[in-house]
Amino acid sequence: MAESSLYSLDNEVFRVYLTYAVVLVLKMFFIAFYTSFVRITKKVYANKEDFGIGYPEEKAKERISKGNDRVERVRRCHLNDLENIPVFLVIGLLYVAINPVASTAILHYRIFTAARFIHNVAYLLPLPQPCRALGFTTGVLVTASMGIQILRAAAQF
Amino acid sequence: MAESSLYSLDNEVFRVYLTYAVVLVLKMFFIAFYTSFVRITKKVYANKEDFGIGYPEEKAKERISKGNDRVERVRRCHLNDLENIPVFLVIGLLYVAINPVASTAILHYRIFTAARFIHNVAYLLPLPQPCRALGFTTGVLVTASMGIQILRAAAQF
Amino acid sequence: MAESSLYSLDNEVFRVYLTYAVVLVLKMFFIAFYTSFVRITKKVYANKEDFGIGYPEEKAKERISKGNDRVERVRRCHLNDLENIPVFLVIGLLYVAINPVASTAILHYRIFTAARFIHNVAYLLPLPQPCRALGFTTGVLVTASMGIQILRAAAQF
Repeated sequence: MAESSLYSLDNEVFRVYLTYAVVLVLKMFFIAFYTSFVRITKKVYANKEDFGIGYPEEKAKERISKGNDRVERVRRCHLNDLENIPVFLVIGLLYVAINPVASTAILHYRIFTAARFIHNVAYLLPLPQPCRALGFTTGVLVTASMGIQILRAAAQF
Repeated sequence: MAESSLYSLDNEVFRVYLTYAVVLVLKMFFIAFYTSFVRITKKVYANKEDFGIGYPEEKAKERISKGNDRVERVRRCHLNDLENIPVFLVIGLLYVAINPVASTAILHYRIFTAARFIHNVAYLLPLPQPCRALGFTTGVLVTASMGIQILRAAAQF
Repeated sequence: MAESSLYSLDNEVFRVYLTYAVVLVLKMFFIAFYTSFVRITKKVYANKEDFGIGYPEEKAKERISKGNDRVERVRRCHLNDLENIPVFLVIGLLYVAINPVASTAILHYRIFTAARFIHNVAYLLPLPQPCRALGFTTGVLVTASMGIQILRAAAQF
């Protein structure tokens, strides 16, 4: 394949990357809306205007400062996604440029995606450790593996 | 247009993407510096060394633990940008690869950017809900719309 | 160089970008694992299941709500990376598309990377201000400089 077409839909690795990239982003959005859902059902918001017009300000302040364990758990889960998924999206995209063996690349994309789903489920239920730690670490190692292959390809050129 | 030139300045969609991408990043930086500005004017920092040499450590600790509502509001606004803008930057870039109709693509980029400005203004003033929720949700829906088009293009190939 | 090959390993600017992008991501991962390391050595976690099976729940709750200054410092350092590095990764990648002079581009990538290392060291030791502020601001200015060059290139086309 000509190098110039690596970032085109003709390239299977790029097509697979596109698919997993979008799946991961939609998953992140799900967690974002789930946070809102938990806030609404628990009536625990971070801003006084979120309680609605007419809600007593003193009571709003009290609920804000008290917080809620469930909301904080979902937020930490979301923040962990934020630490890992945008970085994967970029490294996974750059990985396409070194024209990796398709099966190897697809394996990286799949394992990362599976690891993030495991991490999220382990965080939200929660499952006993080390489930969550394994999901997190696997995701980091897959991204690092792509990173190291990129470094070597750029250096060997 | 040849697929190989989608990521070049010859491609109008890519040029428009570049413009909005940079505008959004500069906007994020504005919020970051605004956070510092509010911290300095309120003299509420997160680290004891930020109070300057000679500031009594006990007093610094007290101010850190007390915090400030305004600072926390700006921080939450910034964090929401961080949840949404980097993901948009990647998905918007990948969207160029499926060679969308220029007017449709430009509309997506414009609405997202407008939605984020509305979100930020609604958060910082603040405006009554659902202004902020609408800004946030519109941004997510625009990104999801691009994502779904990418999924379909990658699957149909 | 033909525009179609800007995102190939033939392009020196892209190769240098790839190298610094991966170095920055590996640095971020180091901070992420360092956070876990500090949590484990201080035995201060954010979730009750992290204390391990058999740890008294009341005691876990107490340690969670008390927190730890060192853990919070490392977390803020990580969060600042998260604010700046993914955005740099995208803007740095887009910068390749405007085919900048190689020496200028490489200087941007190098200064940004150095600035983030300075920021992290200044945050974690900590060094007195304005070391950390300089590291942070330099990183932002480098990213903004690339952004403004992108805006001009897209507008002049």
